[in-house]
Amino acid sequence: MSMNGAESLVRSLLASEVEVCFTNPGTSEMHFVAALDHVEGMRCVLALHENVATGAADGYYRMKGRPACTLLHLGPGLANGLSNLHNAKKAGSGVVNIVGEHAETHVALEAPLYSDIEGIARPVSGWVHTSHSAADVGADAATAVAEARRAPGQVATLVLPSDTAWNEGGVVAEPQPVPAPEGVSEAAAAEAAALLDGPQTLLLLGQGAVGAENLELAGRIAAKTGCHLLSEWSNAVMERGAGRVMVNRVPYPIDQALELLAPYRNIVLLGAREPIGFFAYPGKPARLTPEGANLYTLADRSRDLDQALAALCAAAGATEVPPAHVAEAHLPEVPEGPMGPDTFAPVLARAIPENAIVVDESITTGRAFFPATAGAAPHAWFNNLGGSIGYSMPCAVGAAIACPDRKVLALTGDGSAMYTPQALWSMARENLNICVVIWANRSYRILRGELSGVGVQNPGPRAMDMLSLDRPAIDFAAQAQSMGVEAEAVTEVEQFQEALARGIEKDGPYLIEAIF
Amino acid sequence: MSMNGAESLVRSLLASEVEVCFTNPGTSEMHFVAALDHVEGMRCVLALHENVATGAADGYYRMKGRPACTLLHLGPGLANGLSNLHNAKKAGSGVVNIVGEHAETHVALEAPLYSDIEGIARPVSGWVHTSHSAADVGADAATAVAEARRAPGQVATLVLPSDTAWNEGGVVAEPQPVPAPEGVSEAAAAEAAALLDGPQTLLLLGQGAVGAENLELAGRIAAKTGCHLLSEWSNAVMERGAGRVMVNRVPYPIDQALELLAPYRNIVLLGAREPIGFFAYPGKPARLTPEGANLYTLADRSRDLDQALAALCAAAGATEVPPAHVAEAHLPEVPEGPMGPDTFAPVLARAIPENAIVVDESITTGRAFFPATAGAAPHAWFNNLGGSIGYSMPCAVGAAIACPDRKVLALTGDGSAMYTPQALWSMARENLNICVVIWANRSYRILRGELSGVGVQNPGPRAMDMLSLDRPAIDFAAQAQSMGVEAEAVTEVEQFQEALARGIEKDGPYLIEAIF
Repeated sequence: MSMNGAESLVRSLLASEVEVCFTNPGTSEMHFVAALDHVEGMRCVLALHENVATGAADGYYRMKGRPACTLLHLGPGLANGLSNLHNAKKAGSGVVNIVGEHAETHVALEAPLYSDIEGIARPVSGWVHTSHSAADVGADAATAVAEARRAPGQVATLVLPSDTAWNEGGVVAEPQPVPAPEGVSEAAAAEAAALLDGPQTLLLLGQGAVGAENLELAGRIAAKTGCHLLSEWSNAVMERGAGRVMVNRVPYPIDQALELLAPYRNIVLLGAREPIGFFAYPGKPARLTPEGANLYTLADRSRDLDQALAALCAAAGATEVPPAHVAEAHLPEVPEGPMGPDTFAPVLARAIPENAIVVDESITTGRAFFPATAGAAPHAWFNNLGGSIGYSMPCAVGAAIACPDRKVLALTGDGSAMYTPQALWSMARENLNICVVIWANRSYRILRGELSGVGVQNPGPRAMDMLSLDRPAIDFAAQAQSMGVEAEAVTEVEQFQEALARGIEKDGPYLIEAIF
Repeated sequence: MSMNGAESLVRSLLASEVEVCFTNPGTSEMHFVAALDHVEGMRCVLALHENVATGAADGYYRMKGRPACTLLHLGPGLANGLSNLHNAKKAGSGVVNIVGEHAETHVALEAPLYSDIEGIARPVSGWVHTSHSAADVGADAATAVAEARRAPGQVATLVLPSDTAWNEGGVVAEPQPVPAPEGVSEAAAAEAAALLDGPQTLLLLGQGAVGAENLELAGRIAAKTGCHLLSEWSNAVMERGAGRVMVNRVPYPIDQALELLAPYRNIVLLGAREPIGFFAYPGKPARLTPEGANLYTLADRSRDLDQALAALCAAAGATEVPPAHVAEAHLPEVPEGPMGPDTFAPVLARAIPENAIVVDESITTGRAFFPATAGAAPHAWFNNLGGSIGYSMPCAVGAAIACPDRKVLALTGDGSAMYTPQALWSMARENLNICVVIWANRSYRILRGELSGVGVQNPGPRAMDMLSLDRPAIDFAAQAQSMGVEAEAVTEVEQFQEALARGIEKDGPYLIEAIF
C-alpha cells in the first residue's frame, strides 16, 4: 500500500497503542492533520495553547500507563508547551512529543518560524530525533513510543520536517520492544530489610511505588520491621483513601521537613531520591536528612519498583504480615468557621467520590488537605513534580480522557489557574467529567512566605504588589463561562459544600471559584 | 556602600537606562523583588504569564529603541516566555532577559525546578551568561544591556543564581558602550544606485529602514531612479499614513508573492533579507525572487540603516528630489455589506487616531487592511516577525508603557488572542491606553487556506474540527470583563464603528469582539 509519511506516522502510532493526540497544529503539520481523517482510531483533542496539550499528555500517562502523543507547530509551539513537558519529565510521564518542522530546504533559509527545535526540546526530553525522509517516519515513531515508555516514562521528542509528511514512501512500523526495567537482587533487598529493622528507620517511597498494591507491601514491611513510611513531597499518582495504607509526604516547608527527618538514622530509598529542599535558602542545608544518616538506595525510579517492593517485603519476612497504617473510613466534621484551608479540607474529604482522581495544585491552600482526606473514599492523588505552575487543569484534561468513568477534581490556586485557562475550553469541547475548584486568595500566597523564608525582612509596597492578584480581582467563574464551562463563585462554607456536590454530580465540566 | 547582588542589579540596570521590568517572579527571585523596594526608579509591571512579560518587552523596545528587562522564574518561567522571545529575536528587539536560577549548590542536586536554563535560552538569545558571584552581577547586567542594544537589538539573557542575589558584595556598574553598527561605503551605495536606475528594479526595505525619515529617502530614490519600493511582509515598526511615503509589503500568500516579484531583474536589499516563503509548499519554490534576478545586499539589518539609506540617496543624486508615493489623506467610505475584512478595513482607516500605534496580528482578516489604511492619520504599524501567535496583546502592553500619550490599537485574530489572554489583566492593572479588537471568525482561518496550500484535497471532518474554534464559541467580551477590562461584542458594521469610537476615546483599556 502506498502512503505518504504522515499516514505512516498515524498508522505506526496506532500499531504501538498510541490512541490519543493532544494537539495545536499549524501549517507544517497539515498533512498529519489530513492523515487523521484517512485513518480511523486516533482521538484528536484540540488545545488552544500547547501547554494544555503537553499537560494533558502528562495526565493521560499517569492514569493509562502508556503514552499519548502531541502534535505541535514548530519551535514556538514546542516552546509554548515546554513548561508542562518539564513537569512531565519530572513526573516520569511518557509523552510521544511530535513537533512539526519546516521542510529541510526551508530550514536552511532561516524562515521566520525557524528555530533550533532540537535545542529547545533537549532540556525536557530523554530522547530527541529528527526524521529525514518519509520512509523513516514510521520506524522513528515506533522508536519514539518505546523510548517514551522507558521506565518510569520519559518525554520522547520526534521532529518531523513537513516534507517527510507529504512525500510518498511511508512505511508502517511494528511496535518496538519497550526496554524492561531491572529489578533488585535478593542480596540488596536483604541489606535494605536489615537497615529497616528497628526504630528510627524510614522507608521513603518515590513515585511508581505509591500505588495501592505498593503501599500494601510497604504497610506489611512497616508492621514487621517497625520502620516509618513516607513518600516524597510530590507523587505522580498516589492511591489512597479508606482501606489503603496511609503514607504522609515529606513536607514542603524546609523547617518542617528538617524536623520530621531529623530522627532517622537508616533511610531506605525506593523509587525516591535523596530528599532535598525545593529551593535553596540562605544559611539552611539543601539536604533534608540529618548528617550521619545512612541512606541506602534500594532502587531508583528507573527500576522495576513493584519487584523491588515485593523483594523487600520477602526479605523482611513480611509477606504474610497484615499491613500497618491502613486508613479507616473517616469523614471529618466540617467545623464552624470562615472559608479557608481548615474548612476546605473536611469539605473536600466528605465530597471526594469513590475512584475520583484529584489533580492537586492547591499550593499553600492545600497543605492541610492530605491528612484530612486520608480516610475519604478511595481515590488517586496527583501532585506537580516539576514545580512549574499551570499543570492542574491541563493534567486533568488528560486524566479525564484516560478514565472517562472516573470523576476528576482539579484543585488549583488562582495564580496557577491563570497560567493555563485555555484548558477550560478543551474541557467544554470534550465534555470532560472534571470539577475544577479555584482557591481564590487573590495573591501568590506562597511567595509571601518565601519572601521571609529567603530572609527578606519588611518587604515594601512595591514588592508586595508583585505578589498580589487583587488589582483587579479576577472573576474566574465568568472566565470559565466565557469558554463554555458552567461555573459559580462561593464565599461561604455551606455554599461551597453545595457547589461541590453540584460539580461532582454534573456529567461534564464545572468550575467553582472559592473566594476567601 | 555595601549592598547585596540584587541591589547592584537594579542600580546597574538603572545606570544603563533600563527603567521598566516586566516580570513574573518566584522564590529564586525574591531578593530582586525586595531590591526593587529599596531602589527608586524601576517601574515593575506584573504579568500573570511570562509570555506577556516577554512580548511586552518586545513592544517596549520597538517604540523606545532601548530595552526593558524581564525577571523570570527559573527554566520553566523562561520556557513560558520563550515564544514571544522568539518573536522578539526575529523582530530585532533588544530585551534584557533576566532569569533567576537556584543557588549553585542547589543546581548540583537537580531540584524539582532545576533545568538547563542556558540551553532553553540559547535558541532565542544572541547573548547568554550566568553570573557566578554577587560581585559580578552589576557588571554582567551592564554587559547584558549593551548586548541587548547591539544593532538591531537582540535578546540578552542573564541567568542569576539566587545566592548571587542574596550575598553581599554587589558593585554598581557603569553603562557599557553599545557596539556601533557599521555603515556602508560610498562605492557600495553607488553600485546599488546604479542597479536601481531603470525599470524592473526594486528597493526592498527591511525593518529598521521603514521609519518616516527612511521612507522619505526611499521615496526620493524611487522618484529619481524609477525603482519600485516594497517592504518585507513583516516589519517591527513601519511609520505610515497621510503625508508619508507609502510602501506595500511582499504578500504572505506564496502565489501572490511570486507574481509580484516576478518582473524584477535588479533587487537591492536594505535591511531586508532575501524574500522567501513563510512556509515551504510542495512543488513551489522557497525563494520568491525570479531565477536570474540580481540580488544586491547593500546592508543587512545589523548595519546603520539610516546611514545606508542616506548614502544610497546621495549616490542616486536624489537628495533634493521630492519623494514619490507620498500618501494623501484619504478616508475610504465604508461600503454597505456584512461584517468582514472588506468592511473592517475602511472602518479602521477612519478610526485610527493620529499617532496611534497599531499592533497587528489580524492574520487572514487583516490582509486588506494595509492598502485601506495608507491614507489614514499618521501612525505606526507593528507586525509579528517570528510568526508565533499570541504576540499582539502583550506587545501592545509594552508599547503603551513606552508611549503613554499615544493610543495603541491591538488587532488580533481569535485564535491568536487565546494564546495570551492574561495580557488583559496587565492592561487593566496598569490602566493602559489600549483598544483591543478581536476578529472572531471562530476558526484558525489561515490554516484552512494552508491545508489546500500544502496540497491536502477534500479535508474530512476530523481535520476541519482541528481548525475550528466554534465548539464552544468563546465569549471574548466576557473574558475581558473577567479580568477587569471593559468590553463589548459587535455583530453589525455600524455597531462596530461606534464601539471603536468608544474604545479609542476611553482613557484605559477597552476590548471589542467583532463577530463575523
